[in-house]
Amino acid sequence: MKLYELCGADRAVCFSPFVWRVRLALAHKGLAYEAVPTRFRDKDAYAPSGSRTVPVLHDGDAWVGDSWAIAQYLEDTYPDRPSLFGGAPGRGMARFVARFADRVVVRGLFPMIAVDVAAALDDADAAYFRNSREAALGRTLEQAAEDRAAARDALQARLAPLAATLKDQPFVCGDEPAHGDYLLAGPFAWAHLVSPFDPLAGDAVLCDWRARMFALFDDLIGGARRAV
Amino acid sequence: MKLYELCGADRAVCFSPFVWRVRLALAHKGLAYEAVPTRFRDKDAYAPSGSRTVPVLHDGDAWVGDSWAIAQYLEDTYPDRPSLFGGAPGRGMARFVARFADRVVVRGLFPMIAVDVAAALDDADAAYFRNSREAALGRTLEQAAEDRAAARDALQARLAPLAATLKDQPFVCGDEPAHGDYLLAGPFAWAHLVSPFDPLAGDAVLCDWRARMFALFDDLIGGARRAV
Repeated sequence: MKLYELCGADRAVCFSPFVWRVRLALAHKGLAYEAVPTRFRDKDAYAPSGSRTVPVLHDGDAWVGDSWAIAQYLEDTYPDRPSLFGGAPGRGMARFVARFADRVVVRGLFPMIAVDVAAALDDADAAYFRNSREAALGRTLEQAAEDRAAARDALQARLAPLAATLKDQPFVCGDEPAHGDYLLAGPFAWAHLVSPFDPLAGDAVLCDWRARMFALFDDLIGGARRAV
Repeated sequence: MKLYELCGADRAVCFSPFVWRVRLALAHKGLAYEAVPTRFRDKDAYAPSGSRTVPVLHDGDAWVGDSWAIAQYLEDTYPDRPSLFGGAPGRGMARFVARFADRVVVRGLFPMIAVDVAAALDDADAAYFRNSREAALGRTLEQAAEDRAAARDALQARLAPLAATLKDQPFVCGDEPAHGDYLLAGPFAWAHLVSPFDPLAGDAVLCDWRARMFALFDDLIGGARRAV
């Protein structure tokens, strides 16, 4: 099994929030794989998947792109391994958690750390990233970073339902972590691995959950190579 | 089994968003019960529960208050009935859905419909409700209602993760509804039963999901007595 990932100028730095979801899902299922680091411009490497972005999983004859589709593939192809969702309602609600993680967490973090992502990339990827992302943001990456203290406050306000949940139970999925946790931890791994800025500073409940997530699977995120 | 509910001036109007969560959970489990309508000031009726608010469930020797605790009680006490959560990760993620429903949906709807809630209550309850809620809102119920078109836009923006989920699957819990759906449907039942104002107007995906929820269990919400 091969997982196509995104790497920085340092090929050992793997930072994509969507790749991290899959890394955590593979660890949860205890599945070994070979990591294939790619750059933004290396899209030909995984062209058979039909996907233009990582993560892409190549497992035997199967090519699967998109982190949500990969999680479905793993759950359905390896049902004897620990479950990511714990049944149909869990799989359904995980879709909601994924949408919340994408629209609130990834979008919320992006302007705070985009300048640090650019700094972690090699020159060719950094130029592509800066051009495409500054067009999307409508300002320079540096301008976005100047506002990050306010952006952090806004993000933490929108994470209030998550913090309230984690006051009552150690993981989003209850007493033990599962895919609902991985969907949300991926974006925080991304921020941690490229940026010195802490988007959860001051929120003890969320910081504690993040620490639990980073320590899982023998410190998989906590021990990963950082760009900073 | 008795369920203590909240009623309006018309005792047949049951509108509490939290009571509706329990009504839907009981229907999901196929459990019959006797509804006991109460008013805000009738707290002595369910004092043995230790709860000062409805819903309260009285089942044999057990008194259970709080809609989340009642759902746990029903799931654990009646495990042979259809599951509300489908296992541990589903139960964990449902807690997050509940917190999202409380903090985003209930809080978002409240200023839009509070004036209509007051109109649905009998005089003594309406006076209590107006005094306590205007203090919480920092303005009159009428002033809050004047801003409800803008409040609706803000709510719909924060519901984007839910709408994105329901573009991909008919229910929050996947192909079939379960407690994640009931947690979110309760607040929309509340708005529908007391107010002529439609908080989801213009959002076809969310309106379609709501219609599916209202039609469940032989039109349980859709056929309920409205105050308007």
